[in-house]
Order: sequence, then structure tokens, then C-alpha cells
Amino acid sequence: MIRFVTTNAGKYREASALLAAHGIEVEHFELLLPEVQADAIEDVAAYSMKVLAEEADFDFLVDDSGFFVDALKGFPGVYSSYVFRTIGIAGVLSLLEVVDKRQARFETVMGLRLGGETHMFRGVCRGTVTREARGLGGFGFDPIFVPDGQEKTFGEMSLEEKNAVSHRASAARQVAEFLKGR
Amino acid sequence: MIRFVTTNAGKYREASALLAAHGIEVEHFELLLPEVQADAIEDVAAYSMKVLAEEADFDFLVDDSGFFVDALKGFPGVYSSYVFRTIGIAGVLSLLEVVDKRQARFETVMGLRLGGETHMFRGVCRGTVTREARGLGGFGFDPIFVPDGQEKTFGEMSLEEKNAVSHRASAARQVAEFLKGR
Repeated sequence: MIRFVTTNAGKYREASALLAAHGIEVEHFELLLPEVQADAIEDVAAYSMKVLAEEADFDFLVDDSGFFVDALKGFPGVYSSYVFRTIGIAGVLSLLEVVDKRQARFETVMGLRLGGETHMFRGVCRGTVTREARGLGGFGFDPIFVPDGQEKTFGEMSLEEKNAVSHRASAARQVAEFLKGR
Repeated sequence: MIRFVTTNAGKYREASALLAAHGIEVEHFELLLPEVQADAIEDVAAYSMKVLAEEADFDFLVDDSGFFVDALKGFPGVYSSYVFRTIGIAGVLSLLEVVDKRQARFETVMGLRLGGETHMFRGVCRGTVTREARGLGGFGFDPIFVPDGQEKTFGEMSLEEKNAVSHRASAARQVAEFLKGR
């Protein structure tokens, strides 16, 4: 059994459903890992995994994610959780108030520790930032993000709808394919 | 000789002058320490020190600082450097555009590792956020911060003027007093 290490209930809810759909069961392991300050989520995930691997003799999966707004040079990026808790959705919308370039992306890196080896899987979902928040689903900046080719924000989607197109779905699919190939 | 560990030339410039004024010489040790994601700079400093202490058998000093805006729940806080590099001064001013509550503070925590023991010293400088950037001195958010009781921004001050009133000066003074007491 692989332990999914996170304190974020929303992440676990999405990832466990995604992996279960591929026949992979994970167990929620609620542990706050040290997250390093870095510009790329790969670096954050790699560092957390290194620290945990020094202590843990079991297989585990971590999920580091971020919301990157092109016009803001990638802000809030790896610090999305902190930015959400401080200036919030209103703050990000205000930074974009006179900005027409609305492109953004969500990124997830899933880091898998299996039998002492480390593997990384990256999922990206591109889209645009809305002018106002819509919907109460998902978590974080989901209510202001519409994936390319969609009309609803992540916040307006059901778990199933979001899981059909999200960055986390893409990373989880790669994890599942890798595990099936072993 | 104590090594001052930072990749930030501005920090070293200020801190070395401050400590020299108290008769304490430090050597610039340019090393990028892992900085953990945390809300309080004490936690960031403590983590960096722990990691370095595992490797280093010499005495060292680290300086973790942040700019905390009251109306933004402390944002940008410990992530000031990242926020400066992304949304920048213009971004922070725009978040405060319709905000009348302008109180903010700079905080520095200096962490001293001496003979295998760890000591922390905290300096705070309270003030207000200006409506526009003024001055080219200092670094980071200095051009939009006026310390209480002053008229110039940190950006408009000379190194000596800033060092007379800054958060870093307060922390350095405590470090110096501690070292003299040994």
C-alpha cells in the first residue's frame, strides 16, 4: 500500500479518486513535510521527498502543486497556498484588474518513492483566469480558473468533471501507467 | 571569525557594517541555504540553521527577513524575495490601492551558531507603506517603506541612515551585545 503524504484534504480527495479509477489504492498519511522555497514545484517535491526518504522505510507519494499566472511571472506559483491564505482570490484578481493577458496554468508534480527509488510525474492544465470567482467546488484558486476548451471554472465543476481534465489527473494517470508497467 | 551565510549582497553589506560598528567582523560565506516554507521567519531561520549545522563545523550567522503588510495579513512576509521578483513593488502597491490602512513592518531574525549552540535575535522596524516608490537605495521593498518617525523611505536613505533605524540594525545590536557578554 502506497501512502499519500499530505495535510491537504482536497488533494487527497482528488488524487485517491483518480488513482482508484486506475485500480490503485492509496492510504492517507497526514504529515506536514518541510517544503523548501524554490521557483519550480519539482524542486519543492524533490526536497520534501529527500527529507522523508531519510526517515521512512515505506513507499509513498507526494503531490506538490501550484497556480502560475503568466502575466505575473508565474506568481503565486509554488507559494499558492500561502498567497491564498493572505491576499486570496480577491488579491490575485486585483493584480490582474487591468491585465488583458489572462493565461495561467495549474501544475502538479507527483513524486513516487517506491522500493527506495524516486520517480517524478508532472501534470499541467492550461487555461485562463476569470474576471470574478465562480463556484464553490475544488479548493484554492479553482473558482477563478477555466481550463482551455471548458466553460466552467474548476470551482463550478464536480469532482468528476475536474478529475476528467485537471493537472492532477494527468500526473495521476502517469503514476498509474508507471505502476502498471512494473 | 563568524561566517555570514547569505547570497544576498544587500543583506551582507548592511549586516557587516552594523556588526563592524560594534567591533565584530564577519566573513561573507556565499551559500544558498534551503529555506523552508513557513509563516514566521524564525521557523525559516531555524530550519536553515539546522540543515547547515549538520554539515558545518564552524560558527555562522544567518539572516532571514521579511516585509509584512498588516492589511494583507502579513503578505508578502517570508516570501518577500519571491514576491519582489514576480509581482514586485507595483504589485504590492496595486494590492493596497484602495486600502487606507498602510501599516507594515520589516522583520529580521539573525540566527547565530556558536560553538555548537544556536541563538536567535529578532529585530522589527514598524512603519507605513507609501503610495508610490521613492529612492533607489537599499533593496527589495525599501522604496515603499517609511519607518515610524521618519520621512524618507528606506530607499531614499543612505546605508548609514537605514542602519541607524532598521530591523537589521536592531537584530545586529542584539547579536553584538550577546557576543560581548561571552
